[in-house]
Amino acid sequence: MGGRRIQEDIQRLKKSATMLSGSSESARNALLRSIREGLSRDWALIKEANSLDITEARESQLSDALIKRLVFDEDKLASVQLGLSQVATLKDPIGEVLERRLLDEGLLLERVSFPIGVIGMIFEARPDALVQIVSLCLKSGNGIILKGGKEAFRTNSALVASIKRSARSSPLGEEWVTLLESHSDVSSMLKMDDAIDLLIPRGSNAFVRYVMDNTHIAVLGHADGICHMYVDESADLQKAVACAVDAKTQYPAACNAIETLLVHKSVAEEFIPLVAAALSGKGVSIHGDEATASLIFCTPFKEGDYLMEYLALELNIRIVQDIEEAMEHIASYGSRHTDAIISEDKSAIRRFMRDVDSADVFANCSTRFADGFRFGLGAEVGISTAKIHARGPVGLSGLMSSKWLLSGSGQTVSTYSGPEAKAFLHTELDTEGQSVIAGDAK
Amino acid sequence: MGGRRIQEDIQRLKKSATMLSGSSESARNALLRSIREGLSRDWALIKEANSLDITEARESQLSDALIKRLVFDEDKLASVQLGLSQVATLKDPIGEVLERRLLDEGLLLERVSFPIGVIGMIFEARPDALVQIVSLCLKSGNGIILKGGKEAFRTNSALVASIKRSARSSPLGEEWVTLLESHSDVSSMLKMDDAIDLLIPRGSNAFVRYVMDNTHIAVLGHADGICHMYVDESADLQKAVACAVDAKTQYPAACNAIETLLVHKSVAEEFIPLVAAALSGKGVSIHGDEATASLIFCTPFKEGDYLMEYLALELNIRIVQDIEEAMEHIASYGSRHTDAIISEDKSAIRRFMRDVDSADVFANCSTRFADGFRFGLGAEVGISTAKIHARGPVGLSGLMSSKWLLSGSGQTVSTYSGPEAKAFLHTELDTEGQSVIAGDAK
Repeated sequence: MGGRRIQEDIQRLKKSATMLSGSSESARNALLRSIREGLSRDWALIKEANSLDITEARESQLSDALIKRLVFDEDKLASVQLGLSQVATLKDPIGEVLERRLLDEGLLLERVSFPIGVIGMIFEARPDALVQIVSLCLKSGNGIILKGGKEAFRTNSALVASIKRSARSSPLGEEWVTLLESHSDVSSMLKMDDAIDLLIPRGSNAFVRYVMDNTHIAVLGHADGICHMYVDESADLQKAVACAVDAKTQYPAACNAIETLLVHKSVAEEFIPLVAAALSGKGVSIHGDEATASLIFCTPFKEGDYLMEYLALELNIRIVQDIEEAMEHIASYGSRHTDAIISEDKSAIRRFMRDVDSADVFANCSTRFADGFRFGLGAEVGISTAKIHARGPVGLSGLMSSKWLLSGSGQTVSTYSGPEAKAFLHTELDTEGQSVIAGDAK
Repeated sequence: MGGRRIQEDIQRLKKSATMLSGSSESARNALLRSIREGLSRDWALIKEANSLDITEARESQLSDALIKRLVFDEDKLASVQLGLSQVATLKDPIGEVLERRLLDEGLLLERVSFPIGVIGMIFEARPDALVQIVSLCLKSGNGIILKGGKEAFRTNSALVASIKRSARSSPLGEEWVTLLESHSDVSSMLKMDDAIDLLIPRGSNAFVRYVMDNTHIAVLGHADGICHMYVDESADLQKAVACAVDAKTQYPAACNAIETLLVHKSVAEEFIPLVAAALSGKGVSIHGDEATASLIFCTPFKEGDYLMEYLALELNIRIVQDIEEAMEHIASYGSRHTDAIISEDKSAIRRFMRDVDSADVFANCSTRFADGFRFGLGAEVGISTAKIHARGPVGLSGLMSSKWLLSGSGQTVSTYSGPEAKAFLHTELDTEGQSVIAGDAK
């Protein structure tokens, strides 16, 4: 595909995205369902493409972990089809009235949710992520430009071909989605400032960091997940053991698993042997600071441990003087993702929740709750550690922008200016009910 | 000020910003009031600094327009002092509960508004903009790094010195605000990715465009303001004349003034002479396409006119075949700032408001209403044409992020996972009332 061909595709995609943003909820949901059915219709082709990708990956001696993520089998198919059905049942994110204010009689202001425009999705290996993000973009009325890893190119192409085949017979058409060729590089996508409104990278920390550092386009995501749990002097130690074990071992490869346990000095002697026994039972190896090492058997702490995202059954334990030292540790070493306090002291909890500047700040529960589905967001677009646009687990709302709609009857600003200026009413109105743009438009 | 000194200042500023984010509403409002009084206390010093800047500007033969913007006299003082009082009366933007959901009994999730962190403000000439943005950052609990034009350096330094003098005796201290030296260049500020969470440039279009194109930091603002008014076939032509005249002439230098009037062919013959007469009466010179030139006396249209932001009493008029052609013109030439339709046809209005992808889309009123004060936002941080974070006129909410607070009683994710998983409740709760972090914290 040459540069001009890509440019033309993207022009059509932008136009198609505009059409999608104004399309009816029923048309978008119907297409989600027909994409689901289309994947069954085209299953033989997808399966064939996937086995070619896997054969080549084996020949190229790619790692087993990567090959596992590359597999798109009947289980993955069933899972993405279930996802498509669920996304179809979510509430329509377009046209929600976010603010409504009567500026004056006959001059009504509304701020209404509206798709961002064009999402750029760059992902490593996993073809199931492709179907998931396409479904979320379609639901939310956004166009999408996809760029997958070259090891999955045949599978991704077969999936996009199937999606486009289903879309072609829909009133929404097929041009709102495009897959960039395998040989076009990621760096060219990072320069598509004019075409892409928001980038969503999915892959390793290093990959996400590379994307963030090499584009002027807004990025939704997170690189590191260095999460902490602080066990306060007033903690219920049984709760603390249960939460720490869950936060480390329930799924250690997750970004919201803890890497360091901070323990108040006044409970250290009682708590650390307890938690160490529970963690050892789950196979966790502990890196302890000097004070911890005097209480339990552990690997001695070494420089750099507090900056490690182990993503494995390894955990740092550090004894701190007080809540200040715990919060300073989190500010210095954390990645502002998810941090928790275990405490029975309401005042300490308030302080920790107020002063720890992370996307998710928890009290008396596991950090593993930081997740779009557990949070009840319906779907998860990603977890963002940025403070602009969307922060923490992000649902469909992360794919939405808004616009201001002002409906008048001939009003001019000169009426509200100068020495005889008429005053504005600025009456806040209920945001229930449909916006002024709901209903048929010719 | 050397590089190390700046780094140290910024470290202290980030720490101070964290303290500010957790400070009480009353402490922030008290400091706003004492800054207001402090400006009177230090007026002699500020006035002296400003006259030195103005003398030097005259000697350097800077333009009268620039010198006018540089002046900080008793009127400007009164105006920024009034602004400080008003900002003190605004509702506290910190700690508002944006979402509240019971995940399960005893497991409460809240999303709470929280300051972004550190705002970087880069502005040309106007010293009054400095006081305004400092007041908005203080109110919203954000630290601020300021960089003004070198022609205003003495005035800006005197203003910041006064603000810091007032802050020093407050419990909030003075370290949350810093002014970069005149010789430190803008480009070094644009690289402060680690220190600055959001950049707000204030100045010419070219300046804002330069900032947007040369930083990885999120930018709140807009470069061009190429706004349109479309007069539909069903328009009330009296309303159309009044709105067009207001939109062009009420303040032609504003970003939300119109540059092009699009007129449906079926009303052109009646409307164009009417509006031309009214506009001529206000001194507007018209650039007309060929069809318009056959109806009225005007400057013939030339290539590039549709991309001009005149910021003056000049206006393009183009006759279009239908609403589609009008919307295509806006999509091709507009800057997605503010566009309006004049029409009595509800279906056409809905379509225009739905399909025009601009920050503000208006019906039957002047584009000049696109403004934070007119919109009732209380204060205006800026107008953004980006679709990420904040769009259109932006109030204090544009300086806010949010964080997720989850309060439990020892819950672990393992309870809600696997074959015997407990189901989540996900009960939506009212967002009225204070968040779990309100109240005293030790």
